Amino acid sequence: MVTSEADGVRRRRGGGAEARRARRQGGGAVQLPPIRRRLANYEVLDEEGLALIERNADIVLEEIGIEFREDPESLALWREAGATVVGTRVRFPRGLCRSLLATAPPEFVQHARNAERSVRIGGDATVFAPVYGPPFVRDLDRGRRYGTIEDFRNFVKLAYMAPAIHHSGGTVCEPVDIPVNKRHLDMVFSHVRYSDKPFMGSVTHPERAADSVAMAEIVFGRDFVAENCVMISLINANSPMVFDGTMLGALKTYARAGQGTIVTPFILAGAMSPVTVAGTLAQVLAEVLAGAALTQLCRPGAPVVFGCFASSISMQSGAPTFGTPEPALVSYGAAQLARRLRLPFRTGGALCAAKTADAQAAYESANTLTGTVLAGTNFVLHAAGWLEGGLVSGYEKFVLDCDQLAMQQRFCEGVDLSANGQALDAIREVGPGSHYLGCAHTQANFETAFYRSTVADNNSFEQWLAEGEKTAEERGNALFKKWLAEYEAPPLDQAVEEELLDFIARRKASMPDAFA
Amino acid sequence: MVTSEADGVRRRRGGGAEARRARRQGGGAVQLPPIRRRLANYEVLDEEGLALIERNADIVLEEIGIEFREDPESLALWREAGATVVGTRVRFPRGLCRSLLATAPPEFVQHARNAERSVRIGGDATVFAPVYGPPFVRDLDRGRRYGTIEDFRNFVKLAYMAPAIHHSGGTVCEPVDIPVNKRHLDMVFSHVRYSDKPFMGSVTHPERAADSVAMAEIVFGRDFVAENCVMISLINANSPMVFDGTMLGALKTYARAGQGTIVTPFILAGAMSPVTVAGTLAQVLAEVLAGAALTQLCRPGAPVVFGCFASSISMQSGAPTFGTPEPALVSYGAAQLARRLRLPFRTGGALCAAKTADAQAAYESANTLTGTVLAGTNFVLHAAGWLEGGLVSGYEKFVLDCDQLAMQQRFCEGVDLSANGQALDAIREVGPGSHYLGCAHTQANFETAFYRSTVADNNSFEQWLAEGEKTAEERGNALFKKWLAEYEAPPLDQAVEEELLDFIARRKASMPDAFA
Repeated sequence: MVTSEADGVRRRRGGGAEARRARRQGGGAVQLPPIRRRLANYEVLDEEGLALIERNADIVLEEIGIEFREDPESLALWREAGATVVGTRVRFPRGLCRSLLATAPPEFVQHARNAERSVRIGGDATVFAPVYGPPFVRDLDRGRRYGTIEDFRNFVKLAYMAPAIHHSGGTVCEPVDIPVNKRHLDMVFSHVRYSDKPFMGSVTHPERAADSVAMAEIVFGRDFVAENCVMISLINANSPMVFDGTMLGALKTYARAGQGTIVTPFILAGAMSPVTVAGTLAQVLAEVLAGAALTQLCRPGAPVVFGCFASSISMQSGAPTFGTPEPALVSYGAAQLARRLRLPFRTGGALCAAKTADAQAAYESANTLTGTVLAGTNFVLHAAGWLEGGLVSGYEKFVLDCDQLAMQQRFCEGVDLSANGQALDAIREVGPGSHYLGCAHTQANFETAFYRSTVADNNSFEQWLAEGEKTAEERGNALFKKWLAEYEAPPLDQAVEEELLDFIARRKASMPDAFA
Repeated sequence: MVTSEADGVRRRRGGGAEARRARRQGGGAVQLPPIRRRLANYEVLDEEGLALIERNADIVLEEIGIEFREDPESLALWREAGATVVGTRVRFPRGLCRSLLATAPPEFVQHARNAERSVRIGGDATVFAPVYGPPFVRDLDRGRRYGTIEDFRNFVKLAYMAPAIHHSGGTVCEPVDIPVNKRHLDMVFSHVRYSDKPFMGSVTHPERAADSVAMAEIVFGRDFVAENCVMISLINANSPMVFDGTMLGALKTYARAGQGTIVTPFILAGAMSPVTVAGTLAQVLAEVLAGAALTQLCRPGAPVVFGCFASSISMQSGAPTFGTPEPALVSYGAAQLARRLRLPFRTGGALCAAKTADAQAAYESANTLTGTVLAGTNFVLHAAGWLEGGLVSGYEKFVLDCDQLAMQQRFCEGVDLSANGQALDAIREVGPGSHYLGCAHTQANFETAFYRSTVADNNSFEQWLAEGEKTAEERGNALFKKWLAEYEAPPLDQAVEEELLDFIARRKASMPDAFA
């Protein structure tokens, strides 16, 4: 599994014909840099609408307030900052949260242990990270089952192999075969050992957040971590208008360590927010303002991302639905609100309610993914692998989504208006009634002319029949296995690996196993 | 099949609880009006890029020219208009086509025999029409097979039942069991008899175009047809830079009858146009300028639509591919060029290369459909049912796409910023840590809060298992059968029906059968 440093360098450079071949195969060595969007962001609200929603968010913060539960220290911080605290309810003078957020960086770098994989979060950058959080995994061979640490490692490896996945993510699935109070150690280790892309830390307990920081210090060095963002972590609001002690503990730990947080109202509209887009946006903005401002009370300048997870519920059953129009409008609007706050933005991904990688999964995922990208989202969690409302990490779904991510990356490059892009000589050469298949311009641009899908079948019906009438899901099954078979781990300094394993062993020995 | 006029009126009105139920079921009586887009159009080119492409199109028209083949009359019209004609090649003085197009309407109404179904084409309106042209049909029960007139009628009925299909389309599939020189008669009749939505005319021969106009005169009255658009027809350029005699004959017939045409370069980039976006756009613009201007030479003021069918080919196999980034950029750019010409625009649909309604079909279709809608497309052919690069009309695919169309329609309504939309009272009522499920605002908006999918399964995994682990395609199979079972024909004046049947009988008797 371990390869020589020289191999690693050669693989990373990625030039020449071999690299192009690998790029076409859509997995493995050649990696795409984070997206720099050259196209406009799509916007659904005008100045008047945005000002209205901001005013309503201010009313929520001032009149209704936000609960900071199970964490007296947060309440003390808010009291000191000038907020009104009654019980666990915090009410904010007009403008307090915004003024606190003036110290938050509009964009920042999250460092990877391989410097070539470091990502900028904010501005015109878009970073794709895998699905986060599912307790189950699914593939065509074994169906749906609880995730294990082996599945976890597999998804880390697939994310490492995928050219358009820029980030290793966090809980790519829950490794339920490891005690709940210890699995964060194995998860962080797996991200470091099996990938060299940036990763996320644990948020399930303040101590586990501290463990994540300690492990990052082993990888990057204590001094480096003190001054640089090497981890980003997901802090969900318990909407409506509540932050709980677990999340607040993790938020404080990461913010004080100068590490990134993504403050995200987790919204199933109709349950956690009003059934309307504008109402949901006002609540989301209020929650983010309060949660993100707290990071600046912990450490001014700590990187923080405006997060928004937007879905809606079925009004018949209460079940979450995905890929529908209203959450798309919420995401577009939230991205605009984030830009006005000068904060990086996170939303979306390739979300779906479908149980398997069928047409429903793809319609819903494409709808959410396109909205995510056109909104100008900076950090895209759940960009690949998400099934069944986030309950399942799907192996086939993962590689199908990766193909879509690479297409989105190409789309974001926009229109080439160079002389070669204009192709006037080609039109002159070919002329009326002929074709461009063999012309000089086509030959010169053959390798890069069009995006080449890794999973789409564009062959004739007869060939498709002869090959067994495979669905996209069945082709995805073959592709994820190919990626896992071809996977080679990136090099890792042996002393770092040993120190990590030693840290993990000591921490595990200090605790009894817990499974709930 | 025939229902009373009173029934028809009641069905069309569509108010009340019954209507809402029908709307939720996603088929049948209740119809959505054409889309009025309240959101911005997405644009990928700036002023400089647009001017560059327009200049290049002018160079193509002036230096290279366009071929008008097998139609001396077109050449004569161009010569009279001041163009340079050598053989069948026409070269255009700078600005000639644009100045001719000054008489083309920026938007127009296509009348339906049911006035409530008439559509405006242009401006902020978007009209969805079914797939056009496939020789094959497919469903899960019988697989892929040649289309018949029964299939044709079925797709007309499905389009009639679909709330978000605003137009009955044209060749929803080829009825290959009817002689090729006679099937246009049955096709136009089927659109009139089994639907009351607007429809398209035949373009496979100038005589068949004339038959289409004659049948429209029976339905709408000769005087009405003389002064109003009651049909729109698809005129493809034979790219690169050729119009052939068949298409020119149909174009002239329709334009002189004051009927609408959609002048559309059919582009598989890399074969019919350069492998670049900007090169393809320049060629498309040149072809549309020449073809659309010819309609104004035939009859100034004749309605004409700027069409662009954009796909690209696999550089390995030459096969067409869909849902990829480059054709999306072409569509967005072409929409911008059309708006600058003040012409209505047609592109896209729900296009895919997939053989069956699987994840590939849905990813590709969602990608093309979203691009089509966000581009600000006015007339969307192939909005539902397209499979396998346009070779197949898919029954399941049709109803799956219709669900997506209804979502797009909802999306285009944008964000409601009314007091009810802002929902501040709901946020006040619910407060931190509670939920919105039963609050007054949720109850008041229960019926219309969120789009309700007709085919998505949002139930629990356990319920999905118990119901047989159905894919979206399998649910689509049940839904299209339900729509066909529930279909009731709209009322049609018996005298009109008899006159149409008489016309068809006379025309059929005048020709021998031809099958090629």
